[in-house]
Amino acid sequence: MYPKQFIALIESLKILPSIGQKSATRMAFYLLEKNPKGAKNLIEQLRINLENMRHCTLCRTLTDQVICEICADTSRDKTRLCVVEHTADFHALEQLNIFNGYYYILHGYLSPLDGLGPDELGLDQLRQQILAAEVKELILATNPTVEGNATAFYIQEIMHDLKDLKISRIAHGVPVGSSIENLDGGTLFHAFNARQNL
Amino acid sequence: MYPKQFIALIESLKILPSIGQKSATRMAFYLLEKNPKGAKNLIEQLRINLENMRHCTLCRTLTDQVICEICADTSRDKTRLCVVEHTADFHALEQLNIFNGYYYILHGYLSPLDGLGPDELGLDQLRQQILAAEVKELILATNPTVEGNATAFYIQEIMHDLKDLKISRIAHGVPVGSSIENLDGGTLFHAFNARQNL
Repeated sequence: MYPKQFIALIESLKILPSIGQKSATRMAFYLLEKNPKGAKNLIEQLRINLENMRHCTLCRTLTDQVICEICADTSRDKTRLCVVEHTADFHALEQLNIFNGYYYILHGYLSPLDGLGPDELGLDQLRQQILAAEVKELILATNPTVEGNATAFYIQEIMHDLKDLKISRIAHGVPVGSSIENLDGGTLFHAFNARQNL
Repeated sequence: MYPKQFIALIESLKILPSIGQKSATRMAFYLLEKNPKGAKNLIEQLRINLENMRHCTLCRTLTDQVICEICADTSRDKTRLCVVEHTADFHALEQLNIFNGYYYILHGYLSPLDGLGPDELGLDQLRQQILAAEVKELILATNPTVEGNATAFYIQEIMHDLKDLKISRIAHGVPVGSSIENLDGGTLFHAFNARQNL
């Protein structure tokens, strides 16, 4: 029904996360009929970002520099390194202002079926950085999912021989503001077992 | 926190309907980190569509031709013309296969505050087409909102002098599959008043 090129535009919008046929069609109409200026700006911004954005050679975060701002900041605590799955996780932590060390981004979790092994996660590079910076504490902040836990466990295993390295994992437990009644069993199990003395 | 150009990309995605800060950030990360090929394709499709898509000179629908496929189809019923607000409404009706006449797209509704008057809706052109094609029935399929109703009423008023023209409005009433109990008062009022003899 729609012209072929318009269908191609809808398809190219459908790759976006959580966007299906209806939303993509609405977006395509919006961009062409209501806001062609915005569409042109979107093209331009996408082009600039695709050209200039790269991964920091140290922590592998998305940046427009060779070494990102945080890795270039020498005032931070060199002895602590925090491992996260995605660049977005790193930004969530950094916004909290609770951690003054450096980061390392895996860009995923161990998933051999998806072709994500130790090489893709850059675990060799992580090890080299721990040795070079004489890191004292490695904080594993992968997601509390089956895959995230397995990845944390694997990293713990391969770093086991580094005697001076303390390895920690972010706590699992009851989220602030939630009710125990409605919590899933897995979280409650963790919260109960990891109870702390007052 | 993010590089400036990345923030600009997020802003350019936020213009999309129903997309806020969080979704736009997720989209930007997805396009740059997970699917740069898809991002390049999106640029290309947007560019092609911005260049080639235009409004049909007759019905004003979005098309890649000077005259759209439906207006070019001479086998359709010339005596009936259906007025809708948006191109998407026209596609919704056309997919039903219940109407064999031609369409006219207003691209909005009368809204003087937004700068949408009779000129922007192309009501002069609509009148000329009614006269040229000797249209017998004008079906007003604007949305059943205050604005859509006002627009339908206005069109009815200005076409009043065309003595041979029958003007109709799509029915308001109980949607199929809904329950009377949960229906809003306005719809129920219309459904009750427009009751039909069995």
